[in-house]
Amino acid sequence: MSAQLAAKHLISIDDLDRSGIEQILDRAESFAEVAGREIKKVPALRGRTVVNLFYEASTRTSSSFELAAKRLSADVVSIRSAGSAVDKGESLKDTIHTLSAYDPAAIVIRSPHAGAAQLVAGWTPASVINAGDGKHEHPTQALLDAFTLRRRLGSLDGLNIWIVGDVMHSRVARSNILAFNRMGAKTTVCGPPTLLPRGIGALGCRVTPVLTGIDQADVIYVLRMQQERMREAFVPSLREYAARYQIGAGHLGPGQLLMHPGPVNRGIELSADAIDSPQALIGDQVKAGVAVRMAVLYELLAHAPALAAAA
Amino acid sequence: MSAQLAAKHLISIDDLDRSGIEQILDRAESFAEVAGREIKKVPALRGRTVVNLFYEASTRTSSSFELAAKRLSADVVSIRSAGSAVDKGESLKDTIHTLSAYDPAAIVIRSPHAGAAQLVAGWTPASVINAGDGKHEHPTQALLDAFTLRRRLGSLDGLNIWIVGDVMHSRVARSNILAFNRMGAKTTVCGPPTLLPRGIGALGCRVTPVLTGIDQADVIYVLRMQQERMREAFVPSLREYAARYQIGAGHLGPGQLLMHPGPVNRGIELSADAIDSPQALIGDQVKAGVAVRMAVLYELLAHAPALAAAA
Amino acid sequence: MSAQLAAKHLISIDDLDRSGIEQILDRAESFAEVAGREIKKVPALRGRTVVNLFYEASTRTSSSFELAAKRLSADVVSIRSAGSAVDKGESLKDTIHTLSAYDPAAIVIRSPHAGAAQLVAGWTPASVINAGDGKHEHPTQALLDAFTLRRRLGSLDGLNIWIVGDVMHSRVARSNILAFNRMGAKTTVCGPPTLLPRGIGALGCRVTPVLTGIDQADVIYVLRMQQERMREAFVPSLREYAARYQIGAGHLGPGQLLMHPGPVNRGIELSADAIDSPQALIGDQVKAGVAVRMAVLYELLAHAPALAAAA
Repeated sequence: MSAQLAAKHLISIDDLDRSGIEQILDRAESFAEVAGREIKKVPALRGRTVVNLFYEASTRTSSSFELAAKRLSADVVSIRSAGSAVDKGESLKDTIHTLSAYDPAAIVIRSPHAGAAQLVAGWTPASVINAGDGKHEHPTQALLDAFTLRRRLGSLDGLNIWIVGDVMHSRVARSNILAFNRMGAKTTVCGPPTLLPRGIGALGCRVTPVLTGIDQADVIYVLRMQQERMREAFVPSLREYAARYQIGAGHLGPGQLLMHPGPVNRGIELSADAIDSPQALIGDQVKAGVAVRMAVLYELLAHAPALAAAA
Repeated sequence: MSAQLAAKHLISIDDLDRSGIEQILDRAESFAEVAGREIKKVPALRGRTVVNLFYEASTRTSSSFELAAKRLSADVVSIRSAGSAVDKGESLKDTIHTLSAYDPAAIVIRSPHAGAAQLVAGWTPASVINAGDGKHEHPTQALLDAFTLRRRLGSLDGLNIWIVGDVMHSRVARSNILAFNRMGAKTTVCGPPTLLPRGIGALGCRVTPVLTGIDQADVIYVLRMQQERMREAFVPSLREYAARYQIGAGHLGPGQLLMHPGPVNRGIELSADAIDSPQALIGDQVKAGVAVRMAVLYELLAHAPALAAAA
Repeated sequence: MSAQLAAKHLISIDDLDRSGIEQILDRAESFAEVAGREIKKVPALRGRTVVNLFYEASTRTSSSFELAAKRLSADVVSIRSAGSAVDKGESLKDTIHTLSAYDPAAIVIRSPHAGAAQLVAGWTPASVINAGDGKHEHPTQALLDAFTLRRRLGSLDGLNIWIVGDVMHSRVARSNILAFNRMGAKTTVCGPPTLLPRGIGALGCRVTPVLTGIDQADVIYVLRMQQERMREAFVPSLREYAARYQIGAGHLGPGQLLMHPGPVNRGIELSADAIDSPQALIGDQVKAGVAVRMAVLYELLAHAPALAAAA
């Protein structure tokens, strides 16, 4: 009987205020409980259609959204860029018009282009969920990370969270800074100066090129280092990057928690012993993905009269 | 309680007489009404299997058939050529034998080879639906176009319909000439002489290389210009093609309707202002796709004793 | 009310004793009966999740498992190597940890690497089903072959079965030798000496490089000849291979049965007349695939308390 979410789309964490985030996390708790049952399924979106439109390869995000929609009993249409009309040179706008003709309740889109999800929201009556748009945002990742931390620690209020690595190219960093701040945490971003974008501090985080002080962090959130950054000369070599910024089990003080959005490059941004440490929440993060995406679908679609009546 | 459709397969529009087409369009009306409900689903094909076998990339046709089958509650198995046994050199015949072992109610096939669907119908006890076979036919496109026009204008009887563009390589043109004629319209095909196949008039249409007289048309149906036709020297350049045959909003007289099977090449066969004109039915065509394909599946499978009993 | 299967995973036929195999085949009989109904579906795994993880192209095995899971009413997530996190260099272990976070009841894996399924079983709480791992095993193929023979002949006890062709590279050969032996048959493997692996006899089969004596066989099981073996110089040419080892209709004595795991290379290991002969069980084998895979999923998952209670 919770209030209706103000947002129709989830393009950026900025679409949600703190109570909106908490409403989604609360709903995710109830869906996490469903995931523990034999029948991991509720009829909430039965007969409604969810389109997954992925222009980038992704196992975990696409399968997580697909499963979330199926566990809500929606009919899912998954479109990957290979084998799609994209191959015929159709514009994104025309593809969205085509897909909108199916009257989907939601379109989930991943795109290599920052701003793509926002454009899509202007072209369709469906709710649009950003599953990652270039270097811009990946809001469901931030929500599942907030969910994971809230579950473990009760609250994010006053937490000291360090985000370490390739901040420049990370949509996860952007969404997480916004979400962690909104939930009351203090965020520090840390990485090689060439990978710290100018003006990132305007999002409300402290910025530093050195790991000094990370022992005070409650949570160390390590970003994925894209192999191609070396070729692009952002870092001299992955070995040198690892020597300076890799987080190993030895970095983890008692009680410090370790997170990573996956997939991990073992031995680059994280050592194998860190990944397998009991302080690592990486498995919890993935597990949170389905429940949080069920909650996002459920809460966003609650704005539609049909479901609002049913809820 | 409508009569049983005579056809078991839908390979060509020739498989249907006028009353067969009308039976499908009537059924599509009822499914279009279902698409407007919260629960866009009926149990008609529950527990039955529909195989989608696509040897060509296609977003709109494959997702439209997939969704149509799901909204009829069928179990859908979708096979794309990449990642299929085709890669292992298996013949189409053997693939069909394999798939037929699943006792599918229907096999939907798209192939680059004219005649493929007809061959498949000889190799399987399932109903076969041609989702496009080379340059031959694309009957569900013609049905959804007829549905779109009938919805807008009440009837196709006596309509003057121009089909403009690359008639030579267009399976859509072939199926639509047949369907429009059968529904009582008069059809003119128009395009560069190099793209008008010899003998096309035998299908029952007027043929002309010039747009003169198109102002008398009730409907202008523009075909997709494949980029590769230029390389193949059917047209000297896309720019020259566009200069002579592109339809812009300025071509559209009052009351004239514009159609296109999609995906559109903006700025080649159609100008952007034409696409976005209120006289364009392109969105309606796509929207009709799911309802019409549900109707085709429903009516074809009604020949099977099991469903006939249930209907 | 059958007893619980001892095995949790199906990695190798060695995971099953004769009564375990028979329990699966008996269950498959009941699912084959379901496949003959209008509604080819049972609610046994409703709300449970089955992950299909295929690192090799495969139409028949992947679609067969997908359909089997859907006919048991499970939610299915299918992941092909193209478009997956594998592209991002994620290790198999990390992929399995990711997928395990969805709490799947089963993970079905096909891999080009022998031993992959065994490794996966060590990394996940889900039941693991080997859908083919390199040259090692393909146990569901062996079970569906045993099912096909038992259906036709009542029992495998005392049968004389010849397996002919590229034994060296065949996971099917390994699994089938084990399964046929366990079910009471006597097995002979036959092929060019270069394609008969040393020590294969230790699996409990007779080994011969010549077809002499094959007229005494009750069943001739022909393996697929991979085209690339010629390039790898295991055989001098496919033509020469065919001349010596191809099975034609002329080889088939009265009452002899012919089997092949598919897809067949027509004119190489089998002649066209043999494939189309009434003694060929190839279609029955494919048909058995869905029922046997439903049975494997059902019986393996019966070890889980939830389903055991429901069963």
